[in-house]
Amino acid sequence: MPTPLTLDLVAHQLARLRSQPPLVHLLTNEVVQEISANVLLAVGAAPAMIVAEEEAAGFAAIAGAVLINVGTLHPRQLRVMHQAVAAAHAAGVPWTLDPVAAGVLAYRTEACRELIRLQPAAIRGNASEIMALAGFGGQGRGVDSTAGSSDAVTAAEQLARDTGAIVAVTGETDYITDGERTLAAPWGNPLMTRVVGTGCALSALVAAFTAGTRAGSTERLHAVAAACAVAGLAGASASAASTGPGSFKPAFLDALYNLDPARLQDLTA
Amino acid sequence: MPTPLTLDLVAHQLARLRSQPPLVHLLTNEVVQEISANVLLAVGAAPAMIVAEEEAAGFAAIAGAVLINVGTLHPRQLRVMHQAVAAAHAAGVPWTLDPVAAGVLAYRTEACRELIRLQPAAIRGNASEIMALAGFGGQGRGVDSTAGSSDAVTAAEQLARDTGAIVAVTGETDYITDGERTLAAPWGNPLMTRVVGTGCALSALVAAFTAGTRAGSTERLHAVAAACAVAGLAGASASAASTGPGSFKPAFLDALYNLDPARLQDLTA
Amino acid sequence: MPTPLTLDLVAHQLARLRSQPPLVHLLTNEVVQEISANVLLAVGAAPAMIVAEEEAAGFAAIAGAVLINVGTLHPRQLRVMHQAVAAAHAAGVPWTLDPVAAGVLAYRTEACRELIRLQPAAIRGNASEIMALAGFGGQGRGVDSTAGSSDAVTAAEQLARDTGAIVAVTGETDYITDGERTLAAPWGNPLMTRVVGTGCALSALVAAFTAGTRAGSTERLHAVAAACAVAGLAGASASAASTGPGSFKPAFLDALYNLDPARLQDLTA
Repeated sequence: MPTPLTLDLVAHQLARLRSQPPLVHLLTNEVVQEISANVLLAVGAAPAMIVAEEEAAGFAAIAGAVLINVGTLHPRQLRVMHQAVAAAHAAGVPWTLDPVAAGVLAYRTEACRELIRLQPAAIRGNASEIMALAGFGGQGRGVDSTAGSSDAVTAAEQLARDTGAIVAVTGETDYITDGERTLAAPWGNPLMTRVVGTGCALSALVAAFTAGTRAGSTERLHAVAAACAVAGLAGASASAASTGPGSFKPAFLDALYNLDPARLQDLTA
Repeated sequence: MPTPLTLDLVAHQLARLRSQPPLVHLLTNEVVQEISANVLLAVGAAPAMIVAEEEAAGFAAIAGAVLINVGTLHPRQLRVMHQAVAAAHAAGVPWTLDPVAAGVLAYRTEACRELIRLQPAAIRGNASEIMALAGFGGQGRGVDSTAGSSDAVTAAEQLARDTGAIVAVTGETDYITDGERTLAAPWGNPLMTRVVGTGCALSALVAAFTAGTRAGSTERLHAVAAACAVAGLAGASASAASTGPGSFKPAFLDALYNLDPARLQDLTA
Repeated sequence: MPTPLTLDLVAHQLARLRSQPPLVHLLTNEVVQEISANVLLAVGAAPAMIVAEEEAAGFAAIAGAVLINVGTLHPRQLRVMHQAVAAAHAAGVPWTLDPVAAGVLAYRTEACRELIRLQPAAIRGNASEIMALAGFGGQGRGVDSTAGSSDAVTAAEQLARDTGAIVAVTGETDYITDGERTLAAPWGNPLMTRVVGTGCALSALVAAFTAGTRAGSTERLHAVAAACAVAGLAGASASAASTGPGSFKPAFLDALYNLDPARLQDLTA
């Protein structure tokens, strides 16, 4: 039975991130690089996109966290991702996987399965993606999920136990699990699904929050849950101030920037 | 003599798109991926950017429509585009060509000529691009047209007859033709030309509207015309609410999202 | 001792740019292509992103100015950059270098040193980048500078003398120098550092303003200084109208679009 996330936990994690802004190495898809970087900058982290074989592994080893997003995967990028993940793994830098459209297309699904062997700190996906990686035969259409997040809780818990990663399956409600404990964050909103890259940017936030957490710690579970909550709370606030997906995006970034750990409860009133 | 587009026709096509949101495979240029995806999401369609040789052809065959935009063409991308177009053609999936800067640079002009042999459902360009592809010796400067759209109507009609595609030549007024019938949509506006990717995003809309239409049908002509009208009407609405190109973009996305087929006439009042 | 920039000088350069809108060839990083293009469109210039080996050199030779930004450098792009820079150099087209994260990563630092031999018209960077290129051992973390711009004035002057380029080191105050004369523009603002690509887009503006200027001329020094001032003035205006980095970006583009050479003093009141 998932436990509701408390705002105290979220506030604590947000304050921790702001007190030591992590440098996050984003190896993400072509479409969402700008929004991912802007979400990190707005919340207070420092993104860097270093993409060449000549530089990526060296940079991943000195970053605070690494994000791998397979949305526009191709062989040269996959090679760079393997090098960066191996370097992060060797250096004890936590890395997060966003398995975009896993289960729909064989090439990326297989690539995700390979990458996961190098022990991600976190995996963030929609229901279809998480079910596919857990071997539950989930099916998506393109990058959208055809299942709801609540349908994928069991799959997420299984995937967490199999991989040692914190698994976040996001949707109307976000579920975050280490395989034993599962937290629920109820702030998804439909306008967010009409802006490209909000899910991918959430994965960048997840990566940022994992910086400085230890494998197997309760703090890492809380960090991933807080990333989901921060996006959800800012999204709810932005949604209330918007007249459509165009005005939602700047309002979302402003809301992330203005999130005050001491006043999160104001956003859920 | 071009026939003015009626709002009834636009409303019918918009309602059709919303009732069966198409999955649109975008193989587009590096600069405009985000705005293209956001325009499709705002209007109600589902974009997907699948770029690898390992995945593109397979995905094009199951998409509702495919867009090919040569704005930042390079050999690896062109190879993927050929595979995607061939797969779309074989599967009966309509594909749209945006021949960015055709006529200015030989490499892409030749690439467009090659691609066109695989029978695009639609071609959307500015006057210079359409004139160049029709063999009328049009000349552009970079990605801008130095001719007005009305100068290119004859070229557009010729290109439509030569290729079997619906051809849209856009500018102050947009002209949409199957080579026999030509429709005019008068809602171009200058602020749009100060935001990168509005033309490219219009081509993504054209692709979305062609989903589910048959080659040679009047519906396909109407679908392409409706895509131009939808962008024009939303653009006019956004322009009236903006103080510059920065505020135009979110207003444009909001306007697309809020377009109500039953109330389009309010936007032209 | 740096000389404060006068608004008369800025107004003159802005009016010059608007009277002959330059076509600017951007070879920039993956993350900032859209904002760079939108900044140029907003101010009145015409951006073009032509990235293939088959086209880049030919296009650079006919452009008004070229920008090289190494933020997401990889070998294929570096090859294209060399070709474009060589073509620009041969044709007398001024080119600008943005040495993103030079000094942090060896591959790009060496690439910048190689490119600089082909005599850039301008180099625009933060303190760490300029100090690294000048051989002052500056160090950055990712793409952020850990030094203030005022710490790098001597390095900037040295780099300008060594290369013949106008060097702009930007930060809280921007310093622009030809190695003999140094101008200061005091309009940096912190919100700008929370939006990805504002520095890179400033480099695109610098490139645009160098169009039509001669090497060694006072006008080229003034042009680069004016680019910094235009960004700073628009940024200050946008910052005053914003509630965070999300609303800053559209406000910044609107402010650039609405800059009136005759009324710049209104923005500093």
